[in-house]
Amino acid sequence: MNAVIRAVVRTANGRYGDAIVGFQDGWRGLLEDRKIQIQNDDRTDRILTKGGTILGTARTNPEVLREGLGRVKRTLDDNGIDALVPIGGEGTLTAAHWLSEEGVPVVGVPKTIDNDIDHTDTTFGHDTAVSIATDAIDRLHTTAESHQRVMLVEVMGRHAGWIAMNSGIASGAHLTLVPEVPFDVDEVCTMIKRRFQRGDSHFICVVAEGAKPAEGSFHLREGGVDEYGHERFTGVAHQLGVEIERRIGKEVRTTVLGHVQRGGSPTPYDRVLATRFGLHAAEAVHHGHFGQMVALHGTEIGLVSLAEATKQLKLVPPDRHAEAAAFFG
Amino acid sequence: MNAVIRAVVRTANGRYGDAIVGFQDGWRGLLEDRKIQIQNDDRTDRILTKGGTILGTARTNPEVLREGLGRVKRTLDDNGIDALVPIGGEGTLTAAHWLSEEGVPVVGVPKTIDNDIDHTDTTFGHDTAVSIATDAIDRLHTTAESHQRVMLVEVMGRHAGWIAMNSGIASGAHLTLVPEVPFDVDEVCTMIKRRFQRGDSHFICVVAEGAKPAEGSFHLREGGVDEYGHERFTGVAHQLGVEIERRIGKEVRTTVLGHVQRGGSPTPYDRVLATRFGLHAAEAVHHGHFGQMVALHGTEIGLVSLAEATKQLKLVPPDRHAEAAAFFG
Amino acid sequence: MNAVIRAVVRTANGRYGDAIVGFQDGWRGLLEDRKIQIQNDDRTDRILTKGGTILGTARTNPEVLREGLGRVKRTLDDNGIDALVPIGGEGTLTAAHWLSEEGVPVVGVPKTIDNDIDHTDTTFGHDTAVSIATDAIDRLHTTAESHQRVMLVEVMGRHAGWIAMNSGIASGAHLTLVPEVPFDVDEVCTMIKRRFQRGDSHFICVVAEGAKPAEGSFHLREGGVDEYGHERFTGVAHQLGVEIERRIGKEVRTTVLGHVQRGGSPTPYDRVLATRFGLHAAEAVHHGHFGQMVALHGTEIGLVSLAEATKQLKLVPPDRHAEAAAFFG
Amino acid sequence: MNAVIRAVVRTANGRYGDAIVGFQDGWRGLLEDRKIQIQNDDRTDRILTKGGTILGTARTNPEVLREGLGRVKRTLDDNGIDALVPIGGEGTLTAAHWLSEEGVPVVGVPKTIDNDIDHTDTTFGHDTAVSIATDAIDRLHTTAESHQRVMLVEVMGRHAGWIAMNSGIASGAHLTLVPEVPFDVDEVCTMIKRRFQRGDSHFICVVAEGAKPAEGSFHLREGGVDEYGHERFTGVAHQLGVEIERRIGKEVRTTVLGHVQRGGSPTPYDRVLATRFGLHAAEAVHHGHFGQMVALHGTEIGLVSLAEATKQLKLVPPDRHAEAAAFFG
Repeated sequence: MNAVIRAVVRTANGRYGDAIVGFQDGWRGLLEDRKIQIQNDDRTDRILTKGGTILGTARTNPEVLREGLGRVKRTLDDNGIDALVPIGGEGTLTAAHWLSEEGVPVVGVPKTIDNDIDHTDTTFGHDTAVSIATDAIDRLHTTAESHQRVMLVEVMGRHAGWIAMNSGIASGAHLTLVPEVPFDVDEVCTMIKRRFQRGDSHFICVVAEGAKPAEGSFHLREGGVDEYGHERFTGVAHQLGVEIERRIGKEVRTTVLGHVQRGGSPTPYDRVLATRFGLHAAEAVHHGHFGQMVALHGTEIGLVSLAEATKQLKLVPPDRHAEAAAFFG
Repeated sequence: MNAVIRAVVRTANGRYGDAIVGFQDGWRGLLEDRKIQIQNDDRTDRILTKGGTILGTARTNPEVLREGLGRVKRTLDDNGIDALVPIGGEGTLTAAHWLSEEGVPVVGVPKTIDNDIDHTDTTFGHDTAVSIATDAIDRLHTTAESHQRVMLVEVMGRHAGWIAMNSGIASGAHLTLVPEVPFDVDEVCTMIKRRFQRGDSHFICVVAEGAKPAEGSFHLREGGVDEYGHERFTGVAHQLGVEIERRIGKEVRTTVLGHVQRGGSPTPYDRVLATRFGLHAAEAVHHGHFGQMVALHGTEIGLVSLAEATKQLKLVPPDRHAEAAAFFG
Repeated sequence: MNAVIRAVVRTANGRYGDAIVGFQDGWRGLLEDRKIQIQNDDRTDRILTKGGTILGTARTNPEVLREGLGRVKRTLDDNGIDALVPIGGEGTLTAAHWLSEEGVPVVGVPKTIDNDIDHTDTTFGHDTAVSIATDAIDRLHTTAESHQRVMLVEVMGRHAGWIAMNSGIASGAHLTLVPEVPFDVDEVCTMIKRRFQRGDSHFICVVAEGAKPAEGSFHLREGGVDEYGHERFTGVAHQLGVEIERRIGKEVRTTVLGHVQRGGSPTPYDRVLATRFGLHAAEAVHHGHFGQMVALHGTEIGLVSLAEATKQLKLVPPDRHAEAAAFFG
Repeated sequence: MNAVIRAVVRTANGRYGDAIVGFQDGWRGLLEDRKIQIQNDDRTDRILTKGGTILGTARTNPEVLREGLGRVKRTLDDNGIDALVPIGGEGTLTAAHWLSEEGVPVVGVPKTIDNDIDHTDTTFGHDTAVSIATDAIDRLHTTAESHQRVMLVEVMGRHAGWIAMNSGIASGAHLTLVPEVPFDVDEVCTMIKRRFQRGDSHFICVVAEGAKPAEGSFHLREGGVDEYGHERFTGVAHQLGVEIERRIGKEVRTTVLGHVQRGGSPTPYDRVLATRFGLHAAEAVHHGHFGQMVALHGTEIGLVSLAEATKQLKLVPPDRHAEAAAFFG
């Protein structure tokens, strides 16, 4: 995210002399007019390699934005702001689209580790998340091999299985479960048993947090609630692990990667993509191309309308899943 | 582990011309006479950088060894084996000590990621585990900062808090809970509130899996059992996280690093230490120094009797905990 | 490369039941009929994460291939080989194209860390090279900052500046010199002086090994030869460093990354791309699409004719260089 | 280095309430009274994971210090400074010792990536350098194996061969040349030939920059000077590579790691050691133990007199070299 900010500043401030204001903690900062000036200097230059964002972030219900439209417009007017460059995933871009329809000049930058924004080949953050997940699964291979274990690894991806699929391919996992294709516990167990019968040493399965069992396969407790009403730690991987143990009597170990996937220094791929997104977003602002989102198509950065981009999530299509499935078992 | 095997082979086979036999899956392989010949060749040479072990491993109840003593001695006799070099943690070394007392010529090599073997400055595996944990906590800092979160990270260490303490210091965690010092939930909550009142952005606490609340502090469900009788995924960190949320009303995110800490390519520090341990173990065998364990003292590799080494676990002493506590808050 | 081999084997042997033979050391192995059988088993499966190639490689003058055409055809006939899948860069693919025209059924897989193969968005190996180079430049930033230094880093890229450009953007280098755009030493010196006058702490310049000074700028000793007729270690970066020191009297440090850029475990991005390339190459063979090369277009893997693909190298186009130049200085 | 600063500040300022002043660019900042106030706050806290130093550094001839003693004492008096904590290698500590004898209250902290400070098991910075070098050599293995090459890697270590020796052991190099043991080119060539005759795929030799040929072995151009009087890039490894090529007619590739070894985020081992050094240095100041240097002995941090510590460099002793030599060939 910092790489986008740096590139926007470098281009808009450095090249075109425009002043840049950053709002803190996302939409909330915009609503409350909490902002910082950012200049094209050495300090801004050095944020490139740092993960996270110097502006902070916060989940804000877009509803709040609707109610606060007047305040948003006033903040923009008061500060003499000509254009807004929101950076974020589906929620942020949908809100950006709505603002755009309400007359606010907006150029969106897609950012989601899940890679589920449509009409762009990919978004930055995804490569870093896949990289961290793959590194972890590589390590689990070592232990699983030495101990002849079944291991489940839960990675992010509530609606789209891109992280699971890509890290599964990259790490040579024996199975990958994604939200797009409901899984059958019987089939999973059969696969595991076949590998061990063949004399193979271990079985590693990558599970997207949004993976779901097929109808009649097994009962996934939706948010298995604990004594305090919390449920975060009994996700699909843990429940599936218990079920596999019960059915085939083999010890299963489950690892939930969680927030580790979000942080740290981004991969060079993501830094280059984010830098190019930022530069092209600043150019779009400069040329008055509003209501658009920057997007990667092949090797080129182009623009797509926010309306198009936010119509639906980009899921793993059947042929890509079939491609990955060639490596299952 | 592979680095030890390589060094033993290089020294005993390469230098002294002794034949080497590796037993598969630990004590079990010894009991069942499942073995492989290992020679000082290019293939053995290349295992250095690989994590895990080419021999496999298995948790075997030492009792089994007691009952099978006759079989062990027969295996050694039948194969013309003059000495045994068991590599492992407290369980393995205790068994090795017992075998030694029963007349089996043994030189032990300490290996435990927990660093809880006494009479050696450290063991190999620990630096790698600390390194992986620190890397993960570094990443969590980024996310926690951007989202102003409380984050708990559970790392390995059932009896000794070395991984938690060292990765806590290395990553600049704001608190580290170790098994050696029971924690008070009230104090933990006070610390968290103080940081946020001071305007600091986040709070990261490293929790050893064996950390325990002080008497009267809060009730830790020992192995909070689920419907199938399993309990692995409701460790101390998750329960503490729920408790903190309940008490201070701030969202807490918990990450359990789990088996990721065990695998992958070892750090150079661990490779050098393991190589030196292996070399000195082979020398000890050659010179007939049995009933001993190789150990690191300062920069030197020496020998300590297995009797001494297995008397008690090496816990984090109070002054080392006080040293680390200087960085809490 | 191993990831391609694994994917080809998995698909052709695992899915279609075809037998697979690997020739050792590239074309040379084909000429000399040195081969190994590769099966879709657990052993092949585990090569995924390893860099390099299990088959070995060797630079063979394509002329040799011309002279040995008869022998190549005989090798294919004798072994009952229906199709050839050469994996490599421009030289390999040009030879593959020629073989194809001579009637040999060929499907090529592009592989070059330089990213200079045309008609594919990228090739595998490039992301890994950029990643290693970026990691090194990140480290140099730290030292350069503390010591207020000018640092030059020579990276690979004899004809195309992709590695230099991408690692330059990713690491926030202050200048990147590529073969496509001759550089002017005066301008370079002016840039450096301007940064230090502005009070900035350091200057880092990434230099592609094929970067060339503009006419009249300074004399680059082509292969500055030493007493034995060797020249490898006085490349463009070292000579430029000496020239900058002479002109502005500031100490310059030069690092040549060299072969470090080639090795090690590939990035997840490269593993996924190589796996997909291998799978689609095997499919192309199965469906008889010969004389083609697999290629990445956006998110899809397609085929382009070897004739098209080998017509010219893919250089950094002017608009991409201009994009990068926005971050110079 | 930042980890030491943080720990000193945390202890002296945070625990004892003492004010802390940092002098910029080493001794030079002290002479010129250029300083910054550092407090125990969140900003200082976050420097832990960053390499380099927030204070800057500069090579200053200790002679300058001698001449400027009056100015140094005045700076200390004017600022009400009760004690000085210089952090550095042999040069810095020798100057610190001299200042101490002149009546300046000093507690030294040893820092050198070369690990050549005596009377301490190790210094921080060394583990990081070994780690970077090992990572690079691991990568070279891959390429060397695939291409059947001889590869030389020059690492830092002008007087002491610790980096070469430790990274050589850790990476499974086939030979390591250190300054302490002059090498014979004939023997090196014999070793290389033997490996290739045995059918092994490659030969990797780690060369400390201070490695020297034995009398009569071959002529090392001391600082082979180029047309501008510069010599940095024709170090011992390049010259040895050329000589080996000449003698055995096999292509040799040489890589000089250079400044890459210095930078980047320190390893957890180094962060923990530096933190402990800083804490104990602040304690020593608080208790008035001047003229001392903090040192690691086993697992304990103690003090040794600067007089003792600076008497001689800590070289690789013969028995440690013999230990490493067991893995040559």
